[in-house]
Amino acid sequence: MSKTILLGHGSGGKLTSDLIKKSFVEYFDNQTLKAMTDSAIVNIDDKLLAFTTDSYVVDPIFFPGGDIGKLAVSGTINDLAVSGAEPLFISAAFIIEEGFSIDDLESITKSMKDEADKSGVNIVTGDTKVVNKGQCDKIFINTAGIGLLERRCEHISTGKHIQCGDKIIVNGYIGDHGIAVMGAREKLKFETEILTDCACLNHLTKSVIDSGADIKFMRDITRGGLATVVSEITENRKFGIKINERDIPVRESVRGMCEIFGYDPMFLANEGKVLMVVSEQSADKVINIMKKQEHGRESAMIGEITSTNPGKAVLHSVVGGSRIIDKLTGEMLPRIC
Amino acid sequence: MSKTILLGHGSGGKLTSDLIKKSFVEYFDNQTLKAMTDSAIVNIDDKLLAFTTDSYVVDPIFFPGGDIGKLAVSGTINDLAVSGAEPLFISAAFIIEEGFSIDDLESITKSMKDEADKSGVNIVTGDTKVVNKGQCDKIFINTAGIGLLERRCEHISTGKHIQCGDKIIVNGYIGDHGIAVMGAREKLKFETEILTDCACLNHLTKSVIDSGADIKFMRDITRGGLATVVSEITENRKFGIKINERDIPVRESVRGMCEIFGYDPMFLANEGKVLMVVSEQSADKVINIMKKQEHGRESAMIGEITSTNPGKAVLHSVVGGSRIIDKLTGEMLPRIC
Repeated sequence: MSKTILLGHGSGGKLTSDLIKKSFVEYFDNQTLKAMTDSAIVNIDDKLLAFTTDSYVVDPIFFPGGDIGKLAVSGTINDLAVSGAEPLFISAAFIIEEGFSIDDLESITKSMKDEADKSGVNIVTGDTKVVNKGQCDKIFINTAGIGLLERRCEHISTGKHIQCGDKIIVNGYIGDHGIAVMGAREKLKFETEILTDCACLNHLTKSVIDSGADIKFMRDITRGGLATVVSEITENRKFGIKINERDIPVRESVRGMCEIFGYDPMFLANEGKVLMVVSEQSADKVINIMKKQEHGRESAMIGEITSTNPGKAVLHSVVGGSRIIDKLTGEMLPRIC
Repeated sequence: MSKTILLGHGSGGKLTSDLIKKSFVEYFDNQTLKAMTDSAIVNIDDKLLAFTTDSYVVDPIFFPGGDIGKLAVSGTINDLAVSGAEPLFISAAFIIEEGFSIDDLESITKSMKDEADKSGVNIVTGDTKVVNKGQCDKIFINTAGIGLLERRCEHISTGKHIQCGDKIIVNGYIGDHGIAVMGAREKLKFETEILTDCACLNHLTKSVIDSGADIKFMRDITRGGLATVVSEITENRKFGIKINERDIPVRESVRGMCEIFGYDPMFLANEGKVLMVVSEQSADKVINIMKKQEHGRESAMIGEITSTNPGKAVLHSVVGGSRIIDKLTGEMLPRIC
């Protein structure tokens, strides 16, 4: 293992996972953290709460379809929502570089408020630190969040009920966020502008939970991409995953950019996508419900849980071959979120 | 108002307060945030929770008696504790500069774990971001925390029960943290080493709460110093505060450094100090309880709530004069926490 921090340690992929296990989970040493779920699931007397935190360091801070503020709110809302929880409150902590424009700061806070309103959540506490010019890049935002979890949803973040035959569903096109931010950073002009998919998914997840569908697992697909999520689901488990490449929704424009730059859409970042594992019996119902939701119109079933290839996720490609899907290694696009 | 962010906007003093009111509270617009308490007090069904967040950007990251990790845990524990809550869980989110030493990271996480253990709290969730070299200074840590609040303590963070005759108590020497960090930053050699006072105060506050003493208000004295806290207590209130300079505990070594560098101990940062307002009847009892606690041995009564000078805090100096105490203006020592 490297003796210094590499960009890849923040990729959300393999190096991040290794660092978290070795330098954080081992030291902090408690069962809640060891579960390695996106949100911690904690008991307070008879209540079950989801609790999560994320820092946002995206560069540039304004990009097509969003900004760091929108991202900071929706990212934390989504971590709670995919745990099966109803998001209730979030915090907002700012680290700002001396000389940063107050107009830009207010655009960002306005955008945070808009996104919080859409999700029905209040920003109830915060913090402000300022560092000297050159000691941080413009602005970093941390949001932490609390959600209320029903006991019947407690298993969703761990995936412990997953079994063979369960279906894998995503709520729409993958990779938009990665390409939108990369395009903004490199100042690329696209023929068709690609916007971030950044959105709060709590209404979408609630509609599925409230339907009584048999949800086995949910996770938001963020900086490590779809590949990292499916690879993590099978890790140390007795089942495998089969993903059908032809069924993964990818915009033509995103696919085109991937071909030009040599990216694999499976590893591109998303900020408004959830992967669900649901029982075979519930799958069609879940897709129908999701398609009626603003952020689920292009929902698709992309694969299933298999008894073959235990511990592995396998991609069945459009041209007929198959290959193991691994977590993101190294760093594709630093500061994507 | 300035059009760009100044270092003073992160001082914890007047500019910070103005920025928070104008750029955050006004936009985020909700009653919980408007209370401007250190922790948000929120209801989840029949439970009352305290929820808080703080980012730590202290420079240097290791200093006499502590490091950024110890600070990040105790700071958030203290925000919960002074709200009258029992701290339960905290999160830890890291923004790390590419090239940072993993050994240093592990020293920091070890120190976080030690401090969390002392306070009896688990670090249950986290996040890791890495930014390119030069885009942040070494490491920044955000911690958010959740505490459980009894209804009888709900008033403590707002101070709405404060009345004339109430006594002002602090739990020991002020200014140690400010001088310790400043000394480490400037690589000063002191004859007597001055250590940070950084410590978790939740056992101290619990001992006072459990005694049934009539606590009117608590706040931790941090980057804005004692002056900022006493000034904020009286803001828009119908009472004043009288502080007796001779009763404020300040170490001789700290006083000496203040004389050399022209600092006022009243504005120096602290990381293990709480200011309490308690009823006149409870004051002696509270001091006796605090003096039995590890972090309260030098507790002292430093002043009282007065009907004179409403809305103002007044310092009665050792030499017999008096002057208005204002919030910290500008920035005394950037990145003190």
